[in-house]
Amino acid sequence: MEVVQVLHMNGGVGETSYANNSFVQQKVITMTKPITEDAITKLYCSTYPEEIAIADLGCSSGPNTFFVVSELIKVVDSARRKISQKSPEYHVFLNDLPGNDFNTIFRSLSIFQNKLREQLEPGIGPCFFTGVPGSFYGRLFRKNCLHFVHSSYSLQWLSQVPQGLESNKGNIYMASTSPPNVLKAYYEQFQQDFSLFLKCRSEELVDGGRMVLTFLGRRNDDPSSKECCYIWELLAMALNDMVLEGVIEEEKLNSFNIPQYTPSPAEVKYEVEKEGSFSIDQLEVTEVNWNAYQNETDLSDAFKDGGYNVAKCMRAVAEPLLFSHFGEAIIDEVFRRYREIVADPMSKEKTEFINVIVSLKKA
Amino acid sequence: MEVVQVLHMNGGVGETSYANNSFVQQKVITMTKPITEDAITKLYCSTYPEEIAIADLGCSSGPNTFFVVSELIKVVDSARRKISQKSPEYHVFLNDLPGNDFNTIFRSLSIFQNKLREQLEPGIGPCFFTGVPGSFYGRLFRKNCLHFVHSSYSLQWLSQVPQGLESNKGNIYMASTSPPNVLKAYYEQFQQDFSLFLKCRSEELVDGGRMVLTFLGRRNDDPSSKECCYIWELLAMALNDMVLEGVIEEEKLNSFNIPQYTPSPAEVKYEVEKEGSFSIDQLEVTEVNWNAYQNETDLSDAFKDGGYNVAKCMRAVAEPLLFSHFGEAIIDEVFRRYREIVADPMSKEKTEFINVIVSLKKA
Repeated sequence: MEVVQVLHMNGGVGETSYANNSFVQQKVITMTKPITEDAITKLYCSTYPEEIAIADLGCSSGPNTFFVVSELIKVVDSARRKISQKSPEYHVFLNDLPGNDFNTIFRSLSIFQNKLREQLEPGIGPCFFTGVPGSFYGRLFRKNCLHFVHSSYSLQWLSQVPQGLESNKGNIYMASTSPPNVLKAYYEQFQQDFSLFLKCRSEELVDGGRMVLTFLGRRNDDPSSKECCYIWELLAMALNDMVLEGVIEEEKLNSFNIPQYTPSPAEVKYEVEKEGSFSIDQLEVTEVNWNAYQNETDLSDAFKDGGYNVAKCMRAVAEPLLFSHFGEAIIDEVFRRYREIVADPMSKEKTEFINVIVSLKKA
Repeated sequence: MEVVQVLHMNGGVGETSYANNSFVQQKVITMTKPITEDAITKLYCSTYPEEIAIADLGCSSGPNTFFVVSELIKVVDSARRKISQKSPEYHVFLNDLPGNDFNTIFRSLSIFQNKLREQLEPGIGPCFFTGVPGSFYGRLFRKNCLHFVHSSYSLQWLSQVPQGLESNKGNIYMASTSPPNVLKAYYEQFQQDFSLFLKCRSEELVDGGRMVLTFLGRRNDDPSSKECCYIWELLAMALNDMVLEGVIEEEKLNSFNIPQYTPSPAEVKYEVEKEGSFSIDQLEVTEVNWNAYQNETDLSDAFKDGGYNVAKCMRAVAEPLLFSHFGEAIIDEVFRRYREIVADPMSKEKTEFINVIVSLKKA
C-alpha cells in the first residue's frame, strides 16, 4: 500500500519538513537513551560476543539514522574498554521501506565512520553497514542472526488502514466522536500487526537478544483520548472547513483515515505477554512537547512560532497520505489552516506527544 | 578514490550508455551460466542447507542486477524439487560501491519478486534482499555467513591507479609502448588487490562455500598484448589527437591512467594458489565480440553500427574516469573521435573481449 509505504519513512518528504520532524524524534531518542544504554550494556556484558548485529527498524534517511547507531556503538565500546576486552565487530542493518532514500545513507557512510572513529579511542573494531528494504511486519533477516533491535517512532504506523471504517465520517483517525466499531477496528489492526512484528523478530534475534522499541503512544486507557487523537482532530477540522467551502468533496474526506495506532503501555504489555517470545525488562512512558523547539534557546524567531513548528512537523508526517488521497492542489491550504487552528490550543493548554518505550529480552 | 568509486559501478552513467554496457555483460553472464549452475548445484546438493546466502559483488543497478540472482535461485529451486526437498530461504546480498544507485534496485524489488514467483512453481521459500555498500577489496560481511559469491565484470577494476606510472606518457593503460616498470606496477596492484579479495571472502564464506568470478581478462601471457589493451590504445589515440590540436594539455594526458588489470588464467590461478584458502574447480576462458549486438537479429540500423555500439559501451565505462580527470567539456568530442577510430579495426580484424572465469571452493 503506497500510502503506508511513504509513511513508514517517518515523513521524509522534502528537506524542510523532514528537519523538524527529525528534531522531535531526536529529542525522543535522547530521552530514551538511558533505557537503550541499559539494554545494550546488558546484552554485551552477558556474553561479550565477538560480533554484534544491530538492526534499526524504520531508520529513515537523515541525521537520526546515524545518531542512534553511534550511541549504541559508543556504549558497547565504553563497556569493553572498562574490562580491556577486544572490540567486537559491529554489523549494522538499517531497515526502512523500499521507498526510503538509502542512497543518501550509503553516500554519507564514510563521513559518519570517520567521525565515529574520531570520537572514540583507538581499538574500535570494524563497523559494517547494510541496507535492508522492506516492511518490518514480515521477516527481514536471517534466523537467529540479530543481537539488538532498535526502533523509534515507527511502530505506531500500522501495516494498512484498518477495514470497516465507513462509519468514521468527518474524522480522519480515532476521535471522540468515532463509533465503537471504529476503535475496535483500529485496535485489532494494531494487535495483528504488533503481534506479527514480535513473532518475526523473535525468529531473527539470538537467544538473549534484546529490543528497545519506542512508540508514539498514550497514557490513557481510552484509545480516542485527546492526548493521542487531538492533533489529528485539529487536522480534520481544517479538512472539514474545506469540505464546507466546497474545496474538498465530503465523500473524499469520509473515505480518508490515518493508518496509525498509538498504544498504551498496558496494550503493549498485553501483546508482548500474549505472543510469548519476549520478557519485558522495562516499560516506560515519557512525553515531548508538540513544539519540540520549546525551551530551546538560541533559536531564530521562526522556530519560536509553535503553530508553525507543529504544522511543519505534522506536514512532514501527513503530507504523503493527504497527497495520495486528495492530490497535490489542497496541501498548502490545508497546512495554512492547520497552522492557525493548532496555535490556539497550544497557547492555552499542555500539548504533548506521549511516548511508550519498551525494553524486551528474547526469553 | 572517487574515480574508482564510479568505475566499479560498471559504468552506470546515464541510461543510454548503460543499456549497451549491460548487454555485453548480460551476454557474458549467459555464457558463464553452465559454470555458475554447476557451482551452485554442487553447493546446494552437498548439504541441502535450510538457507542460502548469496552475494553478488559489483551488482550495479540495472537489468543484470536481478538477472544473475534469478538464475541462481532457479537452479537451486530445480535441484530441490528433483528430490522433493523443502525450499531453502534465500538471502541475497547485493554489493557495490556506496555511489551505486541502490534506491532503484530496492524500488524494483517487489516487481522482480513477483516475476520470479510467476516463473517458478509454487513452494519456493522467501527471498530476502539486502544492499551492502562498500569496496570488495575489504571485508563486507560477517564471518562464515555466505554460501555463494558471484561477481561478473567487476574484479578487473583495481582498488586504485597503481603508483609509479609517470613513465607511461602518451598511454592511458598498459600498451605496447609502455615501459616494463609500468607493466610491473599494474601487475603488482592486481596481485595485492586480488589476494586481499580472496582473503576477505575466505573469512566470509562458510566452509565448502563457493565463488564464481568473471574477469575481463586475456589469453596471452603478455599483459600489454593487443587483445586486452588495444581498445584502450584506440581511446588514447583520440586523446593524443586532441593534445596535438591543443584541446587537451599534454601534462593532463600524461597523468591519466585507467585503474584496471585484465589477468590471464595463469595469473588468476597463481594468486588463488598463493593465497591458499580456495581450491579451483573450473578455470575457463571465453570471448565476446566488442560489438555485443553482432549476430543479433531484429535490430534497428543504429545497433548494426559497430563503431557506434562500442563507443557507447566504452563511454559507459570510461566517461566517469575521463570526466573526473579532464572535465565535462571534452567528453562528447572524445567519443565522437573514438567511434570513428574504432570502426576501422572492427571492419578488418577479429575484435573481442576475453573473459576469464574461475569457479572456486573454500577448502
